[in-house]
Amino acid sequence: MATIKDVAKKANVSVATVSRVINKKGYVNEETRALVENAIHQLNYIPNELARSLFNKHSKLIGVLVPHFDTQFYAELIEGIENAAMKLGYKIMLSNTQDNAKREKDYIHIYSQYNIDGIIVASNAHNVEQLIKSDLPIVTVDHILSENIPSITSNNILGGIIAAQKLISGGARYILELRGPSFLLTVSERSLGFRQVLVQNNIPYISYDTDLLNPSIDVITKIIEDHPQIDAIFATSDFLAIHAQNILQKLGRKVPEEVQIVGFDNIVYTTLVSPTITTIEQPIRRMGELALESLVKLLNEESLGDFHSVLDVKLIERESTK
Amino acid sequence: MATIKDVAKKANVSVATVSRVINKKGYVNEETRALVENAIHQLNYIPNELARSLFNKHSKLIGVLVPHFDTQFYAELIEGIENAAMKLGYKIMLSNTQDNAKREKDYIHIYSQYNIDGIIVASNAHNVEQLIKSDLPIVTVDHILSENIPSITSNNILGGIIAAQKLISGGARYILELRGPSFLLTVSERSLGFRQVLVQNNIPYISYDTDLLNPSIDVITKIIEDHPQIDAIFATSDFLAIHAQNILQKLGRKVPEEVQIVGFDNIVYTTLVSPTITTIEQPIRRMGELALESLVKLLNEESLGDFHSVLDVKLIERESTK
Repeated sequence: MATIKDVAKKANVSVATVSRVINKKGYVNEETRALVENAIHQLNYIPNELARSLFNKHSKLIGVLVPHFDTQFYAELIEGIENAAMKLGYKIMLSNTQDNAKREKDYIHIYSQYNIDGIIVASNAHNVEQLIKSDLPIVTVDHILSENIPSITSNNILGGIIAAQKLISGGARYILELRGPSFLLTVSERSLGFRQVLVQNNIPYISYDTDLLNPSIDVITKIIEDHPQIDAIFATSDFLAIHAQNILQKLGRKVPEEVQIVGFDNIVYTTLVSPTITTIEQPIRRMGELALESLVKLLNEESLGDFHSVLDVKLIERESTK
Repeated sequence: MATIKDVAKKANVSVATVSRVINKKGYVNEETRALVENAIHQLNYIPNELARSLFNKHSKLIGVLVPHFDTQFYAELIEGIENAAMKLGYKIMLSNTQDNAKREKDYIHIYSQYNIDGIIVASNAHNVEQLIKSDLPIVTVDHILSENIPSITSNNILGGIIAAQKLISGGARYILELRGPSFLLTVSERSLGFRQVLVQNNIPYISYDTDLLNPSIDVITKIIEDHPQIDAIFATSDFLAIHAQNILQKLGRKVPEEVQIVGFDNIVYTTLVSPTITTIEQPIRRMGELALESLVKLLNEESLGDFHSVLDVKLIERESTK
C-alpha cells in the first residue's frame, strides 16, 4: 500500500506539503496541490484516518453506550444511529455495558484512548461524573442524565396518559401496571402519566416492577391469580406486554374480553401474536438518527434547536383492547 | 489532560524514552522506567491508543460487517462478539451494510483508513475480492466466503434433517418449505438436509423463497390457500415460522392439529406465541464469541484448531408439532 512518503516522492514535494493538502490546513499553491492530488490518485493512496485524527484532533468515531443488544428496541435504535452516522461520515464504536458500572467505566476510558469525538449514551449511566469529566460532547437517548446534557426521548408521560385513557374507555376498572424497573426515567414518566389519569378517574391499580429482560413469570402469574378483579394490564414495554398476554392465556383468561392489554414501543412482534397487541408507538429509529445528528451538531458547534428533544408517540389500536 | 510531553518533563527524560516505556519496545533501564511509570501515574496520563497503533501497527479495533440489526439473531450474535472482544481487550466497529454492495465497499475502505486489525463478516459479502485484497485477517460467521477464509457456522444440514424427521414422525405428508433467500449458504444447507430426508421418505413438498425481513404475507397466504393438502411447514428462520403460524391462524387452520410448524434459531418469541413453536436451536451467542476468539487467534498467529468450525444444533420440541 502506498504511503505518504511515496506520494511526496512522486509529486516531488515534502511529506509536510502532502500532509497540508490532505488535511486542508496551511497554504499550498494551486500547482503544487494539483501535483499532490494527482500523485494521490495515481498511487491509490489511502490517507490514514488515525494519523489524520492525531493531527486534526478528531477521529470521526462516535462511542455508543448501550446496556444490551437483546431487544428489538435497541436493534432499531442502533440501526437509526448507524444509518445517520454513515450519512454524515462518522463511524460508531458500539459498547455494551451490560448495565454494569465497571464495564461502562472501562469503555469511557477506552473512548479517551481512541480520540473518540463524542458519546451517545443509550444506557442507564452509572458513571455520570466520569462521563462529564471526560470533556467529550454527549447526547443521551431514551435517558436524561442531566439538565445540561442534550437528550432525545419520546413523550413518555403522554404515552402513559393515552394508554390509561384507552383502557378506561374500554371499560377497565382494576388495572395492573407492569413496569420495567422504575429507576429508569422513561419508565417512571410513563407511570406518571398513566397514574395521573387513573387517579382522576378513581380507578384502582396495583403496580409491579420487574426486570426488563427476564421478567419474573412466576410472580406475575401469582399476582394475576391473586387479583381476579384485574381487567386490564398496562406494560411499559411490548416485551412485557407479550409476556403478560402469554401468562393470561395460560391461566385461561381471554384477551381482550376479560383482560385488556396495552404495551409500549410498537415492536413487530406485537403484530405476530394472537390477539395482536395495542401499543404506544415511539419513533425508535428516528430517536437514534436524531441522537447522532444532534451530536454532530454539537461537534460542529451548530445550534441544536431543542436542547431536550421530545418526540411524539401515538396509540396503535389492535386486538388486545376493546 | 496530561500529554506525553508532560510525562517526559516530569520524569526528566525524552519523549522517545516515555514512548519506549509505554510501548514496551527498546531498552530502558529499570530506574528510568520506574521514574516514567511514576510520572504517568501522578499525572493520570492516558496513552493515546491511536498514536500507539501507528507505532505498533495494530489498533485493537475489529470491524464487524452485519447486513442489518433488525432481528433477534443479529442482536444475540453481536452480543456474543462484543462480549468476547471486551474480554480479550478488543473494541468493535460495527458496520451495517444493509445488504448493499456500495455501503459494504465504503466500510472496507474505512477499515483500511482506521488501521483495523481484522474483520468479522456476518453478512452476505458482495465484495469478496476487495475483502481478500485488503490483506486484513477475516473470519466469517453464519456465512462461508471461501475455503481459505476461516468460518463459524452451525450444522445447518443436520438442522434441516432433524426438522424433516420431526415433521414426518408427526404425520406430515405434504410440506411447505419457507426459505429465506436460497442464495444464502446457510439457507441452502438447511434446505439440502431437509429435502434429503423428504426424498428418502417419498414426501412431496413445495418451496417458496421469501425476503427474510419483509416476508410476502400475501403470497404465502395464497400458497397455503391454493394447497389445502399442506400439513406441515418448515421455515428456515423463527421469524418466518412465527409469520407462518400467524397466517395459518388467520385462515382458521389449527396448529399443530391441521398444520405442524418447525422453525430455526430458537429466538425467545417462539416461546411467547401460542402455540409455542418447535425449532432448531443454534448457539447464536457462542457463534459470535467463537468468531471473535478465532480472529484474535489469527492476529496472534496461533493455531485455529478447526479452520471451519461447525457448531451443534438441536431440536427444541414445543407445541407446534405433534
